[in-house]
Amino acid sequence: MTSIDCPYCKPVGEKVLWQGRTSRVTTANEPGYPYWCRVVWNAHVKEFSDLDRDDREALMNVVAALEQALIAELAPAKINFATLGTQVPHLHFHIIPRFTDDPAYPAPVWNLPVSGLLKAPCTAAIERVAKRLTDSLGTV
Amino acid sequence: MTSIDCPYCKPVGEKVLWQGRTSRVTTANEPGYPYWCRVVWNAHVKEFSDLDRDDREALMNVVAALEQALIAELAPAKINFATLGTQVPHLHFHIIPRFTDDPAYPAPVWNLPVSGLLKAPCTAAIERVAKRLTDSLGTV
Repeated sequence: MTSIDCPYCKPVGEKVLWQGRTSRVTTANEPGYPYWCRVVWNAHVKEFSDLDRDDREALMNVVAALEQALIAELAPAKINFATLGTQVPHLHFHIIPRFTDDPAYPAPVWNLPVSGLLKAPCTAAIERVAKRLTDSLGTV
Repeated sequence: MTSIDCPYCKPVGEKVLWQGRTSRVTTANEPGYPYWCRVVWNAHVKEFSDLDRDDREALMNVVAALEQALIAELAPAKINFATLGTQVPHLHFHIIPRFTDDPAYPAPVWNLPVSGLLKAPCTAAIERVAKRLTDSLGTV
């Protein structure tokens, strides 16, 4: 996959919570996990370690800020995060607040059916998470 | 779970590839994924964002060095990494080199049965990964 056909290079309908110069935070719209977010590196880079040290630090600073914003607003039991990219090799992190009543808890979220009521995220909570990101990271 | 009953505070039979002051690299012994490794924060900390910025940078420098060592020695199709900790809330990263013939490729590795021949890691390759870690990170 090149940047030509990459869904993170040419996103469609992406809801952006915070936009930075080198990365952005979006909601993931994953059924069963209404507050699952992504931190997407803006450039088409494959591996985390392809970034230099300054860029890695900038990216992980966004990941940590998002963690803290989700914890402050939602009080999850745990935060999970992962960078996989096996199918879409454009560097992005999945940031997943876990709750004791979520579809997979306490197992990892992947490869399990999602059952039960699908909850939409609370719009006001998402807006407060976005405000916390702007407050902590600025608007660069 | 407190540090009293935490398997990362009191590891049994852990194979350490690199030992640092604040973190260590171990093999994970996960069936089907012979080169699955872990980066374990030595202290009993729950969330990545509980670390201060300097500690986060030190930890991610180890993650990046391990990624680069695994790529150099094994040429995987992709690196996956994740910090979950939903069941063992002691900060650790799973670093998983993915191969096109691994049990789940290209899906995430979790919650799928492992079939096929279980391969032991090549001892020489593991030793070369360990040497690369020492070369790049030092012995602190």
